[in-house]
Amino acid sequence: MDYISSLNIDTSLPRSVVILGSTGSIGQNTLNVISHHPEKFKVIGLACATNIQLLASQINKFRPKYVAVLNKDVGTKLKSLCSTYIPKILWGTQGYQKIASLSEANVIVSAMVGAAGLLPTIAAAKKSKIILLANKESLVLAGQLLRSILKQTNGVILPIDSEHNAIFQVIHGKFQHIKKIILTASGGPFLGKTKKELKNITPEQALNHPNWSMGAKISVDSATLMNKGLEIIEAHYLFGLPLEKIKVIVHPQSIVHSLVEFIDGSHLAQLGIADMQIPISYCLAYPERINLSYLPKLDLTEIANLTFQKPDETNFPCLQIAKQALKLGQAACIALNAANELAVEMFLNKKIGFLDIPKILKKVLDSSPDMTIDSVETILELDKKIRKITLNLVEKIK
Amino acid sequence: MDYISSLNIDTSLPRSVVILGSTGSIGQNTLNVISHHPEKFKVIGLACATNIQLLASQINKFRPKYVAVLNKDVGTKLKSLCSTYIPKILWGTQGYQKIASLSEANVIVSAMVGAAGLLPTIAAAKKSKIILLANKESLVLAGQLLRSILKQTNGVILPIDSEHNAIFQVIHGKFQHIKKIILTASGGPFLGKTKKELKNITPEQALNHPNWSMGAKISVDSATLMNKGLEIIEAHYLFGLPLEKIKVIVHPQSIVHSLVEFIDGSHLAQLGIADMQIPISYCLAYPERINLSYLPKLDLTEIANLTFQKPDETNFPCLQIAKQALKLGQAACIALNAANELAVEMFLNKKIGFLDIPKILKKVLDSSPDMTIDSVETILELDKKIRKITLNLVEKIK
Repeated sequence: MDYISSLNIDTSLPRSVVILGSTGSIGQNTLNVISHHPEKFKVIGLACATNIQLLASQINKFRPKYVAVLNKDVGTKLKSLCSTYIPKILWGTQGYQKIASLSEANVIVSAMVGAAGLLPTIAAAKKSKIILLANKESLVLAGQLLRSILKQTNGVILPIDSEHNAIFQVIHGKFQHIKKIILTASGGPFLGKTKKELKNITPEQALNHPNWSMGAKISVDSATLMNKGLEIIEAHYLFGLPLEKIKVIVHPQSIVHSLVEFIDGSHLAQLGIADMQIPISYCLAYPERINLSYLPKLDLTEIANLTFQKPDETNFPCLQIAKQALKLGQAACIALNAANELAVEMFLNKKIGFLDIPKILKKVLDSSPDMTIDSVETILELDKKIRKITLNLVEKIK
Repeated sequence: MDYISSLNIDTSLPRSVVILGSTGSIGQNTLNVISHHPEKFKVIGLACATNIQLLASQINKFRPKYVAVLNKDVGTKLKSLCSTYIPKILWGTQGYQKIASLSEANVIVSAMVGAAGLLPTIAAAKKSKIILLANKESLVLAGQLLRSILKQTNGVILPIDSEHNAIFQVIHGKFQHIKKIILTASGGPFLGKTKKELKNITPEQALNHPNWSMGAKISVDSATLMNKGLEIIEAHYLFGLPLEKIKVIVHPQSIVHSLVEFIDGSHLAQLGIADMQIPISYCLAYPERINLSYLPKLDLTEIANLTFQKPDETNFPCLQIAKQALKLGQAACIALNAANELAVEMFLNKKIGFLDIPKILKKVLDSSPDMTIDSVETILELDKKIRKITLNLVEKIK
């Protein structure tokens, strides 16, 4: 039923790893896992946009053969920061794609933020890589395309996202036995709030997630529940499941990372502390597990209480909007993602309010053109078009 | 590491099933699952002790080729109850062993109560059967012996006990990755009570389990926490894990049926409503799952709250006593089981009090002879000896 069910990957160690987005939260966590298991993983390449201070120190520690950055200027500055060891420096769209398809690497960690992660992920898929996917936008924008490329190349995607990783850990290839997958959502920092209370939320409040320490974009997405909406779309393409088999429940403690309900009523779940090093390590070493005893332990008797409730789709309409997009198809998912990226950016820059985000998304979705998506070019074209439409909408709102 | 990790069983359908203990709770649940999937399972044999009214109706419905009952008299009475169809009727120890090793059957459900289940389970193991084990006493009394027989014959044990079944569902052969298994305990009907409050507990109160509907012996064992103690011993022999890798936590809702903690901090858990048809069906159809959509659904948002706490080993000393027995070895486990069976029986007959159970067990364990256990004969000899010692102890208490 799905490519995850027929995982047949090179399990030899050490694995040669490229990290796209090495200075972000996922990238840093990945390097932390690797630094505890240097005999199992070799860092071949690192890529980021502009945070060259951190990249330089990563280069110094992990000695990658290649790095990639946003543009030539950034590359030149980076070079001046490297003292003892200078890797081959690539840049720009071409550079990111090249580092994602290096013949020296078999594992590509795709952890760049937003739509920027798409092209390198596709490049990795075309070269049969084991893609460790944190960039959910790749699947939201190009789920169909990626599935068809992976089918041809025998590449695979292993999900880093904690929810999808939890499901991946318990499915074990038994797709025919699945009744539903149940994605858990923390509910974000505003769980229980009404629209009235949400009206004047500031970016600072939205960035303050109760359980997870994450980047700005995904923190806002968690606060609006759009993150869970995007995860539904991600799960649809990743596991090949229809919308009606994907359910969301709110679980504020973020201990049960997701569940699979089987046809016999059994639910299998993965639990753990809220630390991305656990799902990252599971993908890095798959099908092995590696020792992470340096992390704090999960003690259920200390937590004592795990609670579950239905998501509030009235005060947090983004979940419903994402489901609507998935029903409409790939083009609508692209439109949703483009509009959301822009809306979140404008919210963070205090150009629009918290409740304007779903308002804009709904309008974009209602007016979005029905385009056939059969290539990266059509994806990028639509993405551009929607950003223009979104900007126009914002002007009207103001 | 363990025979469960190298499961290599005949997966062809329909499976030919013998049920030892067909009139008990597990037996009836097994027949209920089978009646919903008649194309997948064929009932070859049924065995019980004396409940021939129910057995006769099961015979009428499932038309087994063989049945086995306690003795010839019971067999004769059974025959007179069978109107339209009369199976071949076996009886006594020999009859139970014969029905457990029929060449026409490949699956033996071992669900007789207490030590009586031992001989037929061993007979099934010797004939390379797939043993669906509910009779935990078989492993408590003869774990070592059964492991060595199964190793020779390539027979397997699949655990029906909900906790061990939960662990079986999530381990997937990855024994080298296990840090701990965590058995959940409901805490029984007297969770939170002190010794003072436990002093005058009646059999009627002990039989009233909050979550599970079970037989009398196991209900009392749940109330004393001895059931969880026996399950620790069962888990030790079943999964080949040392005592320090087996943990117990109290989870009063009985939704999380057990967990496995891996070296990377991931915990995998099986959840479900408290209905034995789920673990039974998982073993019956393994490695497939079968549809049990006729059962009530688990809805975590309805349950809302799952709680966890440390077991109270002061007011419920049986857990500690069982761990001590496991440390002492197979002979001590046999002594523990024999003394417990007798003590529970005497408690149910109101000959001793609730708190006398652990008192007796502790004394038996302190005085129990260190015997080499290398055969069924030595097991039965020690069992007999301990029952005598226990009776003497009870006389002194009264």
